[in-house]
Amino acid sequence: MTGVAVVTGAYGFVGRHVARSAAANGYRVIGIGHGSWGRDEWQSWGLADWHTAEVTLETLSTYVDTPAVVFHCAGSGSVPFSLAHPVRDYERNVSTTLAVLEFARLHCPAANVVVASSAGVYGAATQMPIRTTDALNPVSPYGMHKRIAEDLCRSYGRNFGIRSVNVRLFSIYGIGIRKQLLWDACMKLSAGDNAFGGTGDETRDWLHVEDAGDLMVRAGDHATSAGAVVNGGTGVAVPIRDIVEAIAADLGCAEPPRFSGRIRAGDPAHYQADISDALSWGWAPRKDLRQEIGRYVEWFRSDVF
Amino acid sequence: MTGVAVVTGAYGFVGRHVARSAAANGYRVIGIGHGSWGRDEWQSWGLADWHTAEVTLETLSTYVDTPAVVFHCAGSGSVPFSLAHPVRDYERNVSTTLAVLEFARLHCPAANVVVASSAGVYGAATQMPIRTTDALNPVSPYGMHKRIAEDLCRSYGRNFGIRSVNVRLFSIYGIGIRKQLLWDACMKLSAGDNAFGGTGDETRDWLHVEDAGDLMVRAGDHATSAGAVVNGGTGVAVPIRDIVEAIAADLGCAEPPRFSGRIRAGDPAHYQADISDALSWGWAPRKDLRQEIGRYVEWFRSDVF
Repeated sequence: MTGVAVVTGAYGFVGRHVARSAAANGYRVIGIGHGSWGRDEWQSWGLADWHTAEVTLETLSTYVDTPAVVFHCAGSGSVPFSLAHPVRDYERNVSTTLAVLEFARLHCPAANVVVASSAGVYGAATQMPIRTTDALNPVSPYGMHKRIAEDLCRSYGRNFGIRSVNVRLFSIYGIGIRKQLLWDACMKLSAGDNAFGGTGDETRDWLHVEDAGDLMVRAGDHATSAGAVVNGGTGVAVPIRDIVEAIAADLGCAEPPRFSGRIRAGDPAHYQADISDALSWGWAPRKDLRQEIGRYVEWFRSDVF
Repeated sequence: MTGVAVVTGAYGFVGRHVARSAAANGYRVIGIGHGSWGRDEWQSWGLADWHTAEVTLETLSTYVDTPAVVFHCAGSGSVPFSLAHPVRDYERNVSTTLAVLEFARLHCPAANVVVASSAGVYGAATQMPIRTTDALNPVSPYGMHKRIAEDLCRSYGRNFGIRSVNVRLFSIYGIGIRKQLLWDACMKLSAGDNAFGGTGDETRDWLHVEDAGDLMVRAGDHATSAGAVVNGGTGVAVPIRDIVEAIAADLGCAEPPRFSGRIRAGDPAHYQADISDALSWGWAPRKDLRQEIGRYVEWFRSDVF
């Protein structure tokens, strides 16, 4: 559990929490990726070193010397982006994963490779909770690219013995995220708009980013050359309505949120993770969703405006 | 069935036969790829134009103007190469396919994309004949890269309406090929070495390269946005022993070939294609294997030595 850990995409929302958790677990953590922050800031996130660079075989082998583990958090995390720019999404999610695997093959074959994958690999899943052995039918380019990245991990395991584990993250939230439901709802409701799309009965499985960071670090001890996979969620399906109503209450909105009732095409109705594999590792989510929504809204009111 | 056809990798063994077949079917054929040949030679293969270039979005859009069909034959076709150089194999097989698909999305969304895939996507198949709906468990990096290329075709179909068809070619042979069983056996036997690995009872499904070229061109009429797939074989499983004995006879070897009897690890024992989909298109293999082995040995004796 010690030695050097590399975190690609350490400036990102998940990456910085992985870095902090890895440092707390005794790793000397080196960050690489894009992002504009000063030494004080990246040090406060647990990084011993930071390199602003593309994630390529060349930069990894230049900046990193035989890590014990690579936490690959670099990548794009947006379905709309992947539809508008499929090749750039591919490069960010697939090409960087290939670079990490090739770096492991050539420079540190004993390293454990932990990849931030996504529930998007499941696509239009119908049976809940979703198990890691369920069929993968990704819908978006983003989901397909994450699945391809997983396939490359398995290929490098089978052919070159590289140990990996893909953590399929569900809906990640926490202070600092400026996209997706919590952010959008705060922006909308604080602007006096209480009209939301969908039925409100759609569910998602919300995992706090600190719990996600801890799970990624824990996963490093469970990488296998067969290519392990694990779900990153809480195992609880929460209706969108509950989240939005909680935010509205915390913002002190006069009007409750309303939902159009129109089902959004291409949007999976439900997501709920079977997290038995992660629980068997001794990991468990610790954050309380309702309380963390309160903290998020507090941050939104004080820091954003 | 008319208009411009692009053949990527037109210098290659499959690519040149696809080019000739496409020209015979009325296309104006533009070739792009690597290879060193003169105007006379590429014209004799049906090309109206040839560009020595990497297969990228930039080169495709520079050299080609709204093709009706893209025959994507560029790529590496060697399992050992993919084990020695996984990233280069990936770039040749996956990155070029992504370039073709992105070219179609941005410049010719109505084009049909025909990709030369491989039986390698099936990997360790156990039930013969192999149907296109069977599970894909590629063993080598090469097989995985071909499968990833197929996945990208489906992703571009689902998300951007690009029509594609992947032709999973089995064992392709014919005059001019300087690798794989026919070549290796000719080299070995003509050098007086009659000792072969394996049991001789392993089977492969042999498709003549002219039949393969015709099938690829025929496939252009059956591309779908769901991402069609078809097997390219004859439907007949031929023991390795039969091929090697035929070559030995045609070379006039004194000693018959001997097999070590040792099963080669990682080498699938049998390959036999279910070709009912291709037959339903009105295509059928026309070449006789025994006769074509004779022609191959004749070429080997007269042209190679």
